[in-house]
Amino acid sequence: MAVGLSADLNLVPINGIRLGVISAGIYRTPRPDLCLIEMVPGGTASAVFTTNAFCAAPVTVAREHLARGRPRYCLINAGNANAGTGARGLRDARAICAGLAALAGCTPPEVLPFSTGVIGEHLPVDGIATALPALLTSLRTDGWAECARAIMTTDTIAKGCSATIEIAGRPVNITGIAKGAGMIHPRMATLLAFIGTDARVEAPVLDALLRSCVSDSFNRITVDGDTSTNDACVLLASGAADHPRIDDAGAAAAMDLRHALSTICTTLAQSIVRDGEGATKFITVRVEQGRDEAECLLVCHAVATSPLVKTAFFASDPNWGRILAATGRAGVRDLDVERVDIFLDDICIVSGGARCATYTEQAGQEVMARSEIVVRIVLGLGSASATVWTCDLSTDYVSINADYRS
Amino acid sequence: MAVGLSADLNLVPINGIRLGVISAGIYRTPRPDLCLIEMVPGGTASAVFTTNAFCAAPVTVAREHLARGRPRYCLINAGNANAGTGARGLRDARAICAGLAALAGCTPPEVLPFSTGVIGEHLPVDGIATALPALLTSLRTDGWAECARAIMTTDTIAKGCSATIEIAGRPVNITGIAKGAGMIHPRMATLLAFIGTDARVEAPVLDALLRSCVSDSFNRITVDGDTSTNDACVLLASGAADHPRIDDAGAAAAMDLRHALSTICTTLAQSIVRDGEGATKFITVRVEQGRDEAECLLVCHAVATSPLVKTAFFASDPNWGRILAATGRAGVRDLDVERVDIFLDDICIVSGGARCATYTEQAGQEVMARSEIVVRIVLGLGSASATVWTCDLSTDYVSINADYRS
Repeated sequence: MAVGLSADLNLVPINGIRLGVISAGIYRTPRPDLCLIEMVPGGTASAVFTTNAFCAAPVTVAREHLARGRPRYCLINAGNANAGTGARGLRDARAICAGLAALAGCTPPEVLPFSTGVIGEHLPVDGIATALPALLTSLRTDGWAECARAIMTTDTIAKGCSATIEIAGRPVNITGIAKGAGMIHPRMATLLAFIGTDARVEAPVLDALLRSCVSDSFNRITVDGDTSTNDACVLLASGAADHPRIDDAGAAAAMDLRHALSTICTTLAQSIVRDGEGATKFITVRVEQGRDEAECLLVCHAVATSPLVKTAFFASDPNWGRILAATGRAGVRDLDVERVDIFLDDICIVSGGARCATYTEQAGQEVMARSEIVVRIVLGLGSASATVWTCDLSTDYVSINADYRS
Repeated sequence: MAVGLSADLNLVPINGIRLGVISAGIYRTPRPDLCLIEMVPGGTASAVFTTNAFCAAPVTVAREHLARGRPRYCLINAGNANAGTGARGLRDARAICAGLAALAGCTPPEVLPFSTGVIGEHLPVDGIATALPALLTSLRTDGWAECARAIMTTDTIAKGCSATIEIAGRPVNITGIAKGAGMIHPRMATLLAFIGTDARVEAPVLDALLRSCVSDSFNRITVDGDTSTNDACVLLASGAADHPRIDDAGAAAAMDLRHALSTICTTLAQSIVRDGEGATKFITVRVEQGRDEAECLLVCHAVATSPLVKTAFFASDPNWGRILAATGRAGVRDLDVERVDIFLDDICIVSGGARCATYTEQAGQEVMARSEIVVRIVLGLGSASATVWTCDLSTDYVSINADYRS
């Protein structure tokens, strides 16, 4: 139900980047299902992809193309993942890139393909090829929101956000869009997210910025613990802004850009959780006082992926024993349970490993009734911390995924 | 709905072991909720417990008592886990052991306490103490089935099984009971299971037998990926049979006993999955041709805990891409997807990493409609294999856990 998200997308156009959508008949019921993002020549691009060994054909091809040239186009379809499709899947992904390149007057490696949808079915290449000429003519700078809608699968709402900053006194815009909403548990990269900026950035700096921002945003969310075969996050920098080119990741301008980009990535990542399949609540799991970040993340993920914890949130039931049990099984070395405190928002539920003396069921219920809740687990072992965002597990999650293909 | 389980429990009494149950008012609605298992003096016992750092107070106390003496009694309550209860929880567990010991004429360390139910509430010690005298008088050798019913929480059916073997030409009986049905994802031990035998076995041999059998049975099941705070599996050997005492784990008699015990453990473990919360299907996940068992188990657990795979089984939807995606994210080093084959029962769905040429949606649907299904994943990397049993994820799982405390 898209916790705390608005249907109103006010996305800032990015100079040097145009977008278009079309219905290519990939879904049985016609809807826009094919998108194109075009960047002017001379821009730089960076992307991160899923670590799933069964990565989809478009992921393999996009990686190859990215290694060979400077991307001009992202060609994205919904309704079909082109994953688990073997050699033919690779041929199909290459064919649509070649088809677009011929029409657009560029080389195939300048086209990056992306797919999302059902796994194991072949891409309707002919339908896509037929749609490409009209797709190219549909390109416009204010196409971001339309594109955000066209890449949706089980998402209930389109997701995007924009930011404007100043670099060397010159305005720079960033706009990003993303889709979820199931098979979300990123490792290294996630889902589909496309971010554009008119900043002028050297490719290695862009890479460093994207990786660092993804690590703290998309890689910190989970809906169902399942890492997709198709995850990808792309950052396009058109260079249309007129500040001095950023060629040093440590420069102040790079830091300013990183800060804005991080906000965009975090907002998009959280949007995906807020619209997680069947989600009725947005949960922040914050673990503090671990010895290192990895240890904190162990606990974050044990709690954020526990079906029992997630159903308790769905039921607004302060069954905090499930949070304690998930913490206990997370695998933290030498966990001293007598030093563990757990909070729901500002309410202390566990102190020194047992029910907090001041805790009342009524106080717990008041917090659990909220649609956005912070679970804070204090380990008492060190000074590291980590945060993961997730949603509850509802009967609708099961219904959505039981009915997905029918 | 207890896939393939019968409500008829024909459990063989074990000479030297008696059981009793009573309603001690732990549940608001009266029902038998307190059980006692008594073993004659001179028997041996072994137990394995949860690895959850937040283990329940009775687990801590049972471990202490087991280290100090030879158990005569297992005192088990349902309806309250006595976990997350801190120092008072430990005092409570010790108090009921002392109370029983005083009445039964033994020492407190000869009593092992066990609890299952809601986490974080204090044990109603007074009600339990009041019920102990009548509980002691209720002991009888044919109390196994009654005891199996009294330890149920969200279980829909009581679970138990028996076996009779011959050792040195003399009959030996084994009977076991167990309860699930949620927070099931064992590490080292699991849930509550009590197994009795009249075999004459030295304690170290009994330990070795139990650990080896639990490793291949209870530690190979998962309902929801959540390892409980209270898991325990106890093996009591009364020694009432009259074969020569078994004092060597490598002896033929020990191997015979191990074989029968392994069958009992596997049947009980599978029963817990068959009656997993909301379960409508019993799924065997078998991974073959890994380099070692650990690698195979990585894939087993990724598939068996994937919410997307489990909802597909619930829907009888041959959405095999989800199995492929879970295999791909399991973390197998250098997985060569082009060597991976996947089968649903006898149907090849993935061959060489892509949809099998002979696969048809109809064939997939026929398998998925079954209530018991084997998923077989062939990695093509080595000669190790492993098996994990699980159930599907249904809307009922969420409802059961959303409503558990209300």
